[in-house]
Amino acid sequence: MNGQLIAIDWGTTNRRAYLLDGDGTVLHTRRDAMGLLSVPAGGFADEVAAIRVDLGDLPVLLAGMVGSARGWVNVPYLPCPAGLADLAGALHWVEAGRTAIVPGLADPAGDVMRGEEVQLLGAVAAGLAPDNALLCQPGTHCKWARMAEGRVAGFATAMTGELFALLKAHSLLAEFLTGEVADGEAFRAGVRAGLAGRLTSHLFRVRGSALLGLRKVEDSAAYTSGLLIGHDVAGAALREGDPVHILADPQLGALYASAVHLAAGQPVLLDSHAGFIAGITRIWKASQA
Amino acid sequence: MNGQLIAIDWGTTNRRAYLLDGDGTVLHTRRDAMGLLSVPAGGFADEVAAIRVDLGDLPVLLAGMVGSARGWVNVPYLPCPAGLADLAGALHWVEAGRTAIVPGLADPAGDVMRGEEVQLLGAVAAGLAPDNALLCQPGTHCKWARMAEGRVAGFATAMTGELFALLKAHSLLAEFLTGEVADGEAFRAGVRAGLAGRLTSHLFRVRGSALLGLRKVEDSAAYTSGLLIGHDVAGAALREGDPVHILADPQLGALYASAVHLAAGQPVLLDSHAGFIAGITRIWKASQA
Repeated sequence: MNGQLIAIDWGTTNRRAYLLDGDGTVLHTRRDAMGLLSVPAGGFADEVAAIRVDLGDLPVLLAGMVGSARGWVNVPYLPCPAGLADLAGALHWVEAGRTAIVPGLADPAGDVMRGEEVQLLGAVAAGLAPDNALLCQPGTHCKWARMAEGRVAGFATAMTGELFALLKAHSLLAEFLTGEVADGEAFRAGVRAGLAGRLTSHLFRVRGSALLGLRKVEDSAAYTSGLLIGHDVAGAALREGDPVHILADPQLGALYASAVHLAAGQPVLLDSHAGFIAGITRIWKASQA
Repeated sequence: MNGQLIAIDWGTTNRRAYLLDGDGTVLHTRRDAMGLLSVPAGGFADEVAAIRVDLGDLPVLLAGMVGSARGWVNVPYLPCPAGLADLAGALHWVEAGRTAIVPGLADPAGDVMRGEEVQLLGAVAAGLAPDNALLCQPGTHCKWARMAEGRVAGFATAMTGELFALLKAHSLLAEFLTGEVADGEAFRAGVRAGLAGRLTSHLFRVRGSALLGLRKVEDSAAYTSGLLIGHDVAGAALREGDPVHILADPQLGALYASAVHLAAGQPVLLDSHAGFIAGITRIWKASQA
């Protein structure tokens, strides 16, 4: 077990634990729904002990919302610009040498992240993306990070996924948003509208277009998803041919790739799990140096 | 009772009934919460009969969501451009000569309105706003209408108020949005951000700015309101000095006036009830000609 490590990407609703050997090879992956919201107050130490019973009595390095006010310990954010060495030097040691939490990052404009920084920096360190690049992590809260010389120079988060979920669950549009979301004609029409115009007006027209027979109700969800993603991508202000490195699962990644393409950018899909593994392994090594 | 009329502005959650004399003077106003959602299926005729018992056995002219699929009768939308004469010629008579519903309007781009058209056209007909003007009706669904030669040439609706309510009730931001909304420094900072940038990113930063101590939590609601209203006003693409005629209650009207001002436009506040009265009286007269 020389050099082995347990790395945990611990979010609000999900948790992923990896058993890694010294060079970052994944020996075992375990995924469950034991996110923060499922852990009782004061229950984090027991959870980690249980994972050690399962995967081995090894050092544990944690990242994600586990380091927030709702998590185990509220670890202060590191300000951008920040790189892997900065994260390694600012680990919060719950137990010296054995259990640590990676701090999140703050952008001085008022933005924050926890967990994504490991993926971003790992993707660049592993050569998946260049040292100077624009990286995008779609999801509930979509992150757009500018990397400079291999560090996170700054970032912005868009509430894209959360807004879609809110509209689907609680809005006037809810009854129209039951269809499937896929990269087709309706999705692309939404992206084009989102790239060009006022988001809140196009949202209202989802309903109007259905009522007036201008768009099939079953296409409304794909259109609305396109609208939100188009609005999201518009914020990146891409110039023609600008590469955007997308860290996402294949389905959501494909939607963002399509939108980046329509915005004249050049999408490059990356493996987000590989980014996390590469990042967490390097942070651990740097902390041991 | 010669020439008297009962006019009802009947919305989803509220209802306002006016007793008007022949020249549009308001003799009596009655407001209650008997919006569509409170009327049992098939109950509209009884409701109108009860109002006649109360205000007099007079002709009744109805406008608003009462003419929608969820209301009394689903009256087809009239396409823009449309004026008062068009509405008068397309009334849906529930009882010939006695009870009618004003149709809503549709913009071919996929937008719809029911009830606002009476206010808009009435405001212009009464000389409250010029024949060629940009009119704005803030609210849950904020309407922006271009008037040309006294008719509604076209319009766009922004989900501004609904989005604020959704964020306040159901989003990650909910716990930060408990403060008061007023036209102060935080509101104006929000407007400036909304005029300039990606709405969904600025929304996420409401939380980040509070967590990082960049903005007081109690200022977050005013900032967020400003952000949404700024995004709304940005869609109007105002040039310096462009007048915007705002039909709203004084509080919401003042917020929009402030935002229009920050966008270099020239806000003009109008009385929305006067607009409705002027419009509904003229529609009735034209229908009798």
